[in-house]
Amino acid sequence: MNLPLAARAAAFHALHAENLLLLANAWDAGSARLAQAAGARAIATSSAAVAWAHGWPDGDALPAELLLHTVHGIAGAVDVPVSADIEGGYSDDPARVGELVGRVLEAGAVGINIEDGADDPALLCAKIAAARAEAQARGVGLYINARTDVWLRGLASPERRAEEAVRRGGLYREAGASGLFVPGITSEADIAAVVKGVSMPVNVMARPALPELERLRALGVRRYSAGSSIGETVNALALAMMRDFLATGRVQTYGVPALSYPELNALMKR
Amino acid sequence: MNLPLAARAAAFHALHAENLLLLANAWDAGSARLAQAAGARAIATSSAAVAWAHGWPDGDALPAELLLHTVHGIAGAVDVPVSADIEGGYSDDPARVGELVGRVLEAGAVGINIEDGADDPALLCAKIAAARAEAQARGVGLYINARTDVWLRGLASPERRAEEAVRRGGLYREAGASGLFVPGITSEADIAAVVKGVSMPVNVMARPALPELERLRALGVRRYSAGSSIGETVNALALAMMRDFLATGRVQTYGVPALSYPELNALMKR
Repeated sequence: MNLPLAARAAAFHALHAENLLLLANAWDAGSARLAQAAGARAIATSSAAVAWAHGWPDGDALPAELLLHTVHGIAGAVDVPVSADIEGGYSDDPARVGELVGRVLEAGAVGINIEDGADDPALLCAKIAAARAEAQARGVGLYINARTDVWLRGLASPERRAEEAVRRGGLYREAGASGLFVPGITSEADIAAVVKGVSMPVNVMARPALPELERLRALGVRRYSAGSSIGETVNALALAMMRDFLATGRVQTYGVPALSYPELNALMKR
Repeated sequence: MNLPLAARAAAFHALHAENLLLLANAWDAGSARLAQAAGARAIATSSAAVAWAHGWPDGDALPAELLLHTVHGIAGAVDVPVSADIEGGYSDDPARVGELVGRVLEAGAVGINIEDGADDPALLCAKIAAARAEAQARGVGLYINARTDVWLRGLASPERRAEEAVRRGGLYREAGASGLFVPGITSEADIAAVVKGVSMPVNVMARPALPELERLRALGVRRYSAGSSIGETVNALALAMMRDFLATGRVQTYGVPALSYPELNALMKR
């Protein structure tokens, strides 16, 4: 993408304002090009799928150099804005998280996901503030998508989760976040409460129990992510095909619609 | 893998002597780990699938730095020997191909595939000689799998292809090759003629028209590669799932056997 970083960041913010932004999360430059060909308006990484592509487990294990290499490759391969999931920032030291965010910007991303996980919300606030300061020093309106793991980690009883997510959303917004990511949330009542209580775009993640797309739009959700689901299935297919091949010598393609060698080359043409 | 490079190279040569070696070609460190988990005795890259993973088309377009990054990642992620497909060596200058092979060895591979394509066989001979000299200078018995595109490019009339492949195999062996890769070959008579005529291990590639595994073994084939077929199907699935998701918000998994987030993390654990 040839626009300056600040203009790309502004374009990425605008995508959250104009409609429900759908993100088919990518894990390398190739999957990012496929997402763009499939109509993606922006590319966001799945931290899990990026880690798996490098042969590492999810959960702050991936060496940051590998993450940066992937972000750089994706940003050079697509024309739409890129957002990088940096898990918990790979450090408990906000200053180090700020430095990492500087390198993420240098790699060409204009958005980040950063999560609280099991930590005190005050720690994520400090990391968000450091990320915001770093981006501001570079003149880039970084989109900071603060992720709260209230649902994924059951950080409150089910009936108190929306309230807790709203409370954290307020803290994260104050610290400099641009949006709140609430993976694991599925009930309409919870989604409505979080959207109402948080004065910034709310992001939900694909789950079988989630309402349909049109309901999410009506509920005021502004961003909807596939998360690791596509990467998971793609890795499952690779493993199944490899097992088949090594055991029988046959290439089984399951029910997957074919994409030929020339078609793939055309999709990847620079 | 912790063995010294020379020992890994010897182990890779031995795999061609003991049985028919099946290669479920990988494209990144993650897919290499999946192949190893699926029972692979060695990991070979598919140049096409590696290029696609980086968002580049196949055919000598991928920047060599990206190839080396991938080979390094794979070699660090698995315990079995690694072979890198380097297409035509990304140069017509044998000296530069030799330099690249040195870097491929430094990245941790102990085998290469290198192809003639549409070029005069004399050029591939010069490249093979340069690769062999470079590996010898480093004390590594590099497995050089010389690929001839007699079938893929129709470089002889159908009834003369086996003869032409045998002729080239002889030249490549003389230049320092360890094996001959004949992608596109499918008929039993042709396979038998090439195996008989070439005094080094013969490698064929998965094709629907190819004889079954037991026939390939009986014909004396020593190496059998999935080629780009698994990478192609995996990319096709990613594109289809991304299209579905962006159009409908739903995650369709086709008929792929599920592999959960914890299972994937366990497969990638270091």
